[in-house]
This record gives sequence, structure tokens and C-alpha cells, in this order.
Amino acid sequence: VPVGDRQGFAERLISRVAARESQIVLGLDPDPARLWPAAGASAAQGTSPAEQAAAAVAAHCRAVIDAAGPACVAMKPQLACFERLGAAGWAALAAAVQHAHAAGLLVLADAKRGDIDVSAAAYAQALVGSTATPFGTVDGLGADAFTANPYMGSDTLEVLSRGARAAGAGVFVLVRTSNPGAADIEDLQLAGGGTVWERVATLVATLGGDDDGPLSDVGAVVGATAPEHVGRLRELMPRTPFLLPGVGAQGGRVEDLAPAFAPGRAGGLVTASRSIVFAHEQAGGDPAASARAEAERLRLAAWDLA
Amino acid sequence: VPVGDRQGFAERLISRVAARESQIVLGLDPDPARLWPAAGASAAQGTSPAEQAAAAVAAHCRAVIDAAGPACVAMKPQLACFERLGAAGWAALAAAVQHAHAAGLLVLADAKRGDIDVSAAAYAQALVGSTATPFGTVDGLGADAFTANPYMGSDTLEVLSRGARAAGAGVFVLVRTSNPGAADIEDLQLAGGGTVWERVATLVATLGGDDDGPLSDVGAVVGATAPEHVGRLRELMPRTPFLLPGVGAQGGRVEDLAPAFAPGRAGGLVTASRSIVFAHEQAGGDPAASARAEAERLRLAAWDLA
Repeated sequence: VPVGDRQGFAERLISRVAARESQIVLGLDPDPARLWPAAGASAAQGTSPAEQAAAAVAAHCRAVIDAAGPACVAMKPQLACFERLGAAGWAALAAAVQHAHAAGLLVLADAKRGDIDVSAAAYAQALVGSTATPFGTVDGLGADAFTANPYMGSDTLEVLSRGARAAGAGVFVLVRTSNPGAADIEDLQLAGGGTVWERVATLVATLGGDDDGPLSDVGAVVGATAPEHVGRLRELMPRTPFLLPGVGAQGGRVEDLAPAFAPGRAGGLVTASRSIVFAHEQAGGDPAASARAEAERLRLAAWDLA
Repeated sequence: VPVGDRQGFAERLISRVAARESQIVLGLDPDPARLWPAAGASAAQGTSPAEQAAAAVAAHCRAVIDAAGPACVAMKPQLACFERLGAAGWAALAAAVQHAHAAGLLVLADAKRGDIDVSAAAYAQALVGSTATPFGTVDGLGADAFTANPYMGSDTLEVLSRGARAAGAGVFVLVRTSNPGAADIEDLQLAGGGTVWERVATLVATLGGDDDGPLSDVGAVVGATAPEHVGRLRELMPRTPFLLPGVGAQGGRVEDLAPAFAPGRAGGLVTASRSIVFAHEQAGGDPAASARAEAERLRLAAWDLA
């Protein structure tokens, strides 16, 4: 489906969650030194270390998507892991996006971008839109949504979300993240009351507009490691889809996330990366079978709760 | 010079500013629909719209560097503008970095990245370091420094700056930016006194360490459009190099930035993009001659002041 003809992101997310009976987002942050064993064979396609590593990374992503994808609703590539392989890495990223789409998954580009006016517009073109050039239109990555950083304020987020909306795509804004450093800036108490993350939550709710559909196309990244905040965040952002990283390797538990699902199952997307991809290191056995089993376990835990 | 053999970023910055008698940073944010006329001829090298546009963008960057580079100390590519052309765009970015280095310029990758642990480390590998893979070492972009976003806190910044330092590179952390939206989060007053940007400034000064050299390798992005804050920022970050965007098209004036230069000329780097690249649209005449003249005008304005 051409990007311009896609339905809005919120509608697409709701229908895809229902059809796949899953709220699980498969995170892919491939380390070329720690790929599934079978992926290495693809390296022979490359003629330089970068191309060999990128070919192996692409094969690894295909294998992980094939194994765990059926239990998931979306794939979330971590862009840094591809960028470190240069142009060949960006091509591997594009191939992973295409493979995920072919497998029926949405793609949420974990980019954490934020910038002013023309630069913000260019990020939206790169990740979810396209660019008009004198040589013809150049399609971007074709993701369904991307993550964004709110530090520079609402004008930067408005341009990102406008660019996304024009492409039928969504944005997930960092609000209260899952790392210890969230205490340094996000948790600061404001003179006017509340915290920085509460102020950002209010911005995000405003950006999502007052359409009365069940979900907005501007989402929030809400760390699963701080479940005590999830209820308050849902209060401040009643229609906002939450992307919930930190389950598994970072210590968060699906069972603690119930308020996320208040606006419906698509209101809470649970991301897991290393706990799925490296499940065989805990469970033993075949990487693909272990990844599939762990993704399915998470799928049921979230689905039963929501 | 192999990345691992480079001297530290602060020393390199100081000696390069002195040698080139310039504090001007040439910003490159190429729009394929608005390149210098001669660049279009290079598009014939490409076989797809993305490759054609990327070839034209690469030619434009070379021409702008050749024209304005002699009056500058560094080149600052805006990564979004290259990412929107996909893998071909990333290759054009790498070519622009190489051309800038060959012209004697430092390269400050305007990426505004920020992420947790392994992802932050991967961004440092991508932009200034390298990645060990089973297929050999893959070099990153080879920039001398990159811009970073502090929203997620000190653990994210520590990993980014450690990765940069290991590569002899620097980081410039967004502190108080030049856009109107800076009022939304950065300017918030804290319950404990001060603003969010003052808290970030304190984090940045701490990250820079207590080495007693004249400059730290952790810098700050400080918008030139809020000159009333520059003195306070210098007080909070006495050894921090400032990257000062917003001069020219965004309304900032070099004359208002004197406190930035307190630790020496390399303490204040003045970035300009559109005011240099599109100078001919104001001045008339040849794009290259106008860009060179405007860069030289800025160079003298800053050098005389500092």
C-alpha cells in the first residue's frame, strides 16, 4: 500500500492488535558479534567488513522476525545498531522493515529523534514519509511510527507529528523512560507543581488533538520499570497509545501495567528485545523455538491482563 | 590518522581554531530541491531517484565546503537531511565527512542522539567510533564530535561521552536551544530553584570532568537567539566549549555572544548554515563567491570579538 493511501496510524494500530491478538513489540538491536549462529552464513554476500556484517545482521533480523513475529504486532528496530554499519547498515535496516511488513507486522522505528523545523520535517521524511526531489520522489524507511525526544519543546514535536500524520504514521514521544537516569531531568519537581514528565505528558496529550476516537496518533514511551507512574500517565494522557519498554531484561513485569490498557488493548504495547532474542541462553535449545515461546508467553500475559 | 591515534577532542579543537583563525562551523542541511545549480550534473551517476539525489547532494556538499570551508574550522552535517535519502544518503554523508576532513575541517555530526546503555554505545560507534564484528572492524562515520540530547539523563550522556572520549572525539549536549519551543521544557522553573536548562548545564559541566585543561571534551549547544542566557551558561560551565546555532537565518548576532569566548576562542563555535549557503540569494552573484564572503564576514566578526 503506498504510504499516501494508508489509513491513520491509530486506526491501523487498533485493527492490527485485534487481528493478531497481540500487543507485543519485537525489539531488534542486533550486535554483529552476537547474532544467531545461522546468520553468519549470509556474510559471504559482502565484500567488506561493513557489508559482511550488514548481510549477517539482515539475515539475523529475518530469522528473528520469522521465529517470533507470529506472536507480535510490531517490530521495533533500534536505529543505532544499523547506523554503526554505515550505508550497508541502513540498507539492512530497510530490508528488515520490508521483511517485517511482509510478515504482517507494523514497524516502530526506535530513533528518539528531535530537532527544529526543517530538520524535524526531514526526520519525518526519512522515517515515515518521502522526499520530493528533482529526480523523482525518494521514499523513506516506510516505518509506521517512530520515537521522538521532547526536550526541545512543542514546536519540534508539532513538526514531527504533522509529518507523521501526513504519511498516515504515528509518533511515540519519550515521556518517562525506563533507565535510572530518568531521575535526573524527567523526574525533576517543577516550581508550578508536578514533574517534568507530567508536563511532557500534558504536551503529548495536547498534540494528539481532541478527536474523540479511542486512540490518538501521538503516543508516549513509558518505561515498564516505573509501574507506579503508569496510572498517573494514563490519567494525563487518556487517549495516548503507550509504548512500554523495560519488560524482561530491564526488570519490568507485564502484570504491573494494567492502567496502560484502559483505552483498549492497543493502548498498551509491550516491547521486548533481548529477553526474546536471547531466550535460548536461559531456556537452552534452538534460538528460534525459544524466541517464539518467549514472545508467545509475553503475548498471553498481556492479552489476558488487558 | 586512525581514530584510535587521535589526540583528545579538546586539544584538537583548540589547535585547529588557532591554526585556521576561525570559530565558524559550516552547517550543511542539503535539500535536494534547493542545491547549488552545478550540483545537478552529478545526478547522472545515479540509477534511482535516491541515488541521483544523493549524488547531487554529495556534489553540493563538496562545492560548499570548497567555497566556504577556508573561512571555517568545522563542518556540521544535519543527519536528517542525508537519512531521508536512505543508504545512498548515508554514503553521501560519509563522502561529505571525508571531503571536510581532507579540507582540514573538523566534523561535528548534528545528530541530537540520546538513548540508554547499549544503544547509546552504538550511536557513539556509528558517529565517532568503530564496531568490532566477526568480519573485521567496521569504522563509523569518523566525525570529531556529535550533538546529543540530555532528556533521558546522565546515564545516557555518560555512555555517549565515554564512547566519544575513547575515540578521541567530543559530544555537544543540547542545553538551551535556539527555537521558540525551548520555553516549553528547557525553561521550566524548578521547585529547588533554577531552570531545567541550568540543571542540564550542571550535568554537562560534571560530565566534562575536573581536568584543569582550558576546555572540556563535553560541550554544550547554546542557542545564539537567547544571548541573555549565555553569561549564566558560561558561569555554570566554565570549561565547556559552546556550539552556538541560530546566528543569521534564526536572528542571532555574533556581537551578542562575548561570554561564550571567556575560556578562549575555541570556547565559542558559531554555526551558520542557510545564511552562508544561500547568501547569493541576498547578495546576488555566484553561490560560491557569496558563500565564501559571508563565511569570511562571520569569521572576522567572531575573531575580532573573541
